[in-house]
Amino acid sequence: MSILKGACVVAQSGGPTAVINASAWGAITAALENEHITRVLGAAHGILGVLGDVLYDMSEEDPAELVKMKHTPSSALGSCRYKLADPDEDDTDYARMLATFRKYNVRYFFYNGGNDSMDTCNKISKYCQRQNYECRIIGIPKTIDNDLYGTDHCPGYGSAAKYIATSCMEVWHDAHVYDTGMITILEIMGRHAGWLTGASALACHAGAGPDLIYLPEIPFDMEMFLEDVIAVYKHKGKVLVAASEGIKDSAGQFVAEYGTRLHEHDSFGHTQLGGLAATLAAIVKGRTGAKVRGIEFSLLQRCAAHCASLTDIEESVAAGRAAVERAVAGETDLMVAFRCEREGGYKCEIELLPLDIVANTEKKLPREWISPSGNGLEEQFIEYALPLIQGDTPMARRNGLPNFAKLRKVKAGA
Amino acid sequence: MSILKGACVVAQSGGPTAVINASAWGAITAALENEHITRVLGAAHGILGVLGDVLYDMSEEDPAELVKMKHTPSSALGSCRYKLADPDEDDTDYARMLATFRKYNVRYFFYNGGNDSMDTCNKISKYCQRQNYECRIIGIPKTIDNDLYGTDHCPGYGSAAKYIATSCMEVWHDAHVYDTGMITILEIMGRHAGWLTGASALACHAGAGPDLIYLPEIPFDMEMFLEDVIAVYKHKGKVLVAASEGIKDSAGQFVAEYGTRLHEHDSFGHTQLGGLAATLAAIVKGRTGAKVRGIEFSLLQRCAAHCASLTDIEESVAAGRAAVERAVAGETDLMVAFRCEREGGYKCEIELLPLDIVANTEKKLPREWISPSGNGLEEQFIEYALPLIQGDTPMARRNGLPNFAKLRKVKAGA
Repeated sequence: MSILKGACVVAQSGGPTAVINASAWGAITAALENEHITRVLGAAHGILGVLGDVLYDMSEEDPAELVKMKHTPSSALGSCRYKLADPDEDDTDYARMLATFRKYNVRYFFYNGGNDSMDTCNKISKYCQRQNYECRIIGIPKTIDNDLYGTDHCPGYGSAAKYIATSCMEVWHDAHVYDTGMITILEIMGRHAGWLTGASALACHAGAGPDLIYLPEIPFDMEMFLEDVIAVYKHKGKVLVAASEGIKDSAGQFVAEYGTRLHEHDSFGHTQLGGLAATLAAIVKGRTGAKVRGIEFSLLQRCAAHCASLTDIEESVAAGRAAVERAVAGETDLMVAFRCEREGGYKCEIELLPLDIVANTEKKLPREWISPSGNGLEEQFIEYALPLIQGDTPMARRNGLPNFAKLRKVKAGA
Repeated sequence: MSILKGACVVAQSGGPTAVINASAWGAITAALENEHITRVLGAAHGILGVLGDVLYDMSEEDPAELVKMKHTPSSALGSCRYKLADPDEDDTDYARMLATFRKYNVRYFFYNGGNDSMDTCNKISKYCQRQNYECRIIGIPKTIDNDLYGTDHCPGYGSAAKYIATSCMEVWHDAHVYDTGMITILEIMGRHAGWLTGASALACHAGAGPDLIYLPEIPFDMEMFLEDVIAVYKHKGKVLVAASEGIKDSAGQFVAEYGTRLHEHDSFGHTQLGGLAATLAAIVKGRTGAKVRGIEFSLLQRCAAHCASLTDIEESVAAGRAAVERAVAGETDLMVAFRCEREGGYKCEIELLPLDIVANTEKKLPREWISPSGNGLEEQFIEYALPLIQGDTPMARRNGLPNFAKLRKVKAGA
C-alpha cells in the first residue's frame, strides 16, 4: 500500500434521498478517525463548493449533531445538479478545482451521487492524472431510482421502496372503506426505470397493494390500460393502480404529457397540468364514469426519513466508510457497489467497480421480473426487494418530531 | 344504575383516520369483557350495516388479529357517508333500524364518527325513545379535521398533525438542498377549519417548517399572498408555503376553484385541475418566474398509521372503552369528549357531552391563535397541539411493512 497523506473532500450531488447523509456521515467519521487524512472538508453544494472554494471544516462540528446525519434526509452539505464540460473543450472548471485541491492539499475526493456524479468523478480523476496531481477519487452511489449499473442496488432505494410500499398499504385501506365503487391512481417516481413503482408490489405481497402496476420498461397502451382497469372494476368495484411517472407509449411519448394533446382534442376531459395521476384519472373518469382519484406521492417518497429502512441506513453508512478505507488503502477511480446474496438469507458485501463502467449506463428492471401481461411484478422482484426494506429507523425524536442534524458549517480557512 | 342487558353494535362512519380502529377496538374489547353486554356486533359500513342487517359477530374474531386494529388505518368494519332523513318526513330507515335492533336485542349503539355521525346518533336515539325501545347510544368522536365542538380535540387529529408536521420537516430539507431559488407550496386538508394546516407550524417550532401558512379562517387575498411570497423569496431565496385546501377569498370562493376562472381569463397560465397546490403554483410561477413546485399531501395524511401519535392511539382506545363503560353505567345520548389541561404537564380526561350540543357545529381555530397578519400561527397553537403528537406507534411490522389487522367478518345470525 502506498501511503498518501492529505485532506479529503466529501461532497453530495443530485436529488435528495433519505440516506445520502448516512453515507456522508460514514465517510466523514471514517475520515476523521483515519491517521492518513489530515483534514476532513465538506463541500457546499457538491462540486460547486469545490469550484467556488466553499468548504466546511467537519472537525468543527459537534459529533453529537453530526451523528444525526444518519437519520436526516436530503443533503446536509447541500447538493447541485452541475455537469462538468468535456475537459478537452473547456478545462476552466477543472483548473479551478485543481487550484482548490492544491490550496487545501486535498488528496482524497469522495462524491456521493448518481450516474452524473460518477461521470464527474471519472472526469476529475482523469484530469488530475494528466496534471500529475495525485488524488484518490471514489464515488459513493445514491439514488432512489436504483438505476445504477453494476451494483445489486443503490443506497436510498430501500428507504424509498419502504415508504412507497407502506403508503400503498395505507392508501389501499383508505380506498376500501366505502361500499361504493372507487378507482385510485397512484403516481410514483421513476422517469426511466420501474424500480420505485415496482416497490408497490411489496404492498401486494403484504396483502394490500395495487391491482395493476405500470412501469416505464413496458410501452404503455392506453386502450389496454383502460381494459385492465375496467375488468378489475367490474370484478371488485375498487381498483388501485400504481403507475410510474415515466410511462411512455409505443411512440415514445410520456403519458404525463398527454394533457397538452388532450387539450387539442378535448375528447377525454379538461386540460391537465400536474402530471400523470391527474391525466390518467381524467381519462379513466371520462371512460368509466366511476369515482376516480389521482394521488401523486411526489417528493415525499424521496425524503421520508421517518420511514427509512434500517438496512438501507446501515448499508449507506458502510458504503461511506468503505470509500474512505479503500482510498486510504490505495484504490482510486472506483465506485462503491453492493454484491448481494439472497439464497439462504440476505448477505450484502461491498465491492468496488471502475467508474467508467458505472457512469452513464441505466439499469432497468429485467423483463422476466415483470408479469407477461406487463401490468404486475413477478416473485423474483419481491425476493430481490424485500431484504432492502427490513428494519425501522432508530431516528431520534424530540417533542414527537424528528430530531434532524443541524450542522454549524464553519468555513474552512486554508 | 339501571341494569340493561343486551347486544351492542359498534359502527364506523365518515372518512378514514389513522386511529378510528383504535377507538373501535377499545369499544369492542370493553364490550366483550362486559357482563351486561350479551353479544358484540360490528356493523358493516356504518349505519348501512344496521339498515341492511349486515352485522359481524366480533366474538368470532381472533383476539390476536383484533388487537392489530389499534394500529390499522381506515375503518376495519367499513364506513359510509349516509345522512338519515328527518324521521317526521320519512321514517323508513328508522323502522328498518329498529327492526334490526329488535332482531338481535341490540340495547347499546356506539357510533364512531364526525359531526354527521353525532347527528345520526341523536336522531336514532330520539326515534328509539318515541318507540319506547330502550337503547343507549353514545357517539365516539373521530375526525382528522378536529372541528368537533365541545371537545378539546378529536381522536385522529393528533396522528394527522404528526404526519403533516413530520412531512413538512422532510419537505423543508428537500427544498433547501440546492443553491438555487425555489418556492414550494404544500396543500393540506381541511375544508372549513385550519387545524390540519396549522399543524405545519409544529414543523416551524422544530426548526424546519413553512415560512407562510394560510388557513380557511382568514379570507385569502391573492395580492397579499403574492407580496408575502415575493418578500420571503427576495430575502431567503427559498419559500415554503402551507395552504389549506379550504382557503376562500373575501367573496367566499374557494381558491382551489380558480382554475376554471383562470381558464377564461388565461392571464396567469393554463387551466388547472388538481386542486389548490397546482393552482397557486401556476399563479406564483406566472408572477415570479421562479421555480415553483406544488405538493398535495392528499389522503396520505389521513391514513398514515405508520406515523401515528401514541397519545392519539391511547386516547382513541380510551374513548372507545369509555363509551361502553358509561353506557352500561346508564348513560345515553352523549358523545365522548376530552377535557385537557396543559399547564403543569398535559392531562386528558374523558367527559360526556349531550349529542345535540355537538352535532352540526364546527369548531374553528381561534383568531388569537393565528398571527395578526393572518399567515402564521401563534405560540398558543403550539402549546395546544404539541402534546397531541407525542409518542410513536408501537405498530407491529412483518417483513419490514405494517402488519395490519385482517378481520374474518363472520356474519351474525339472529
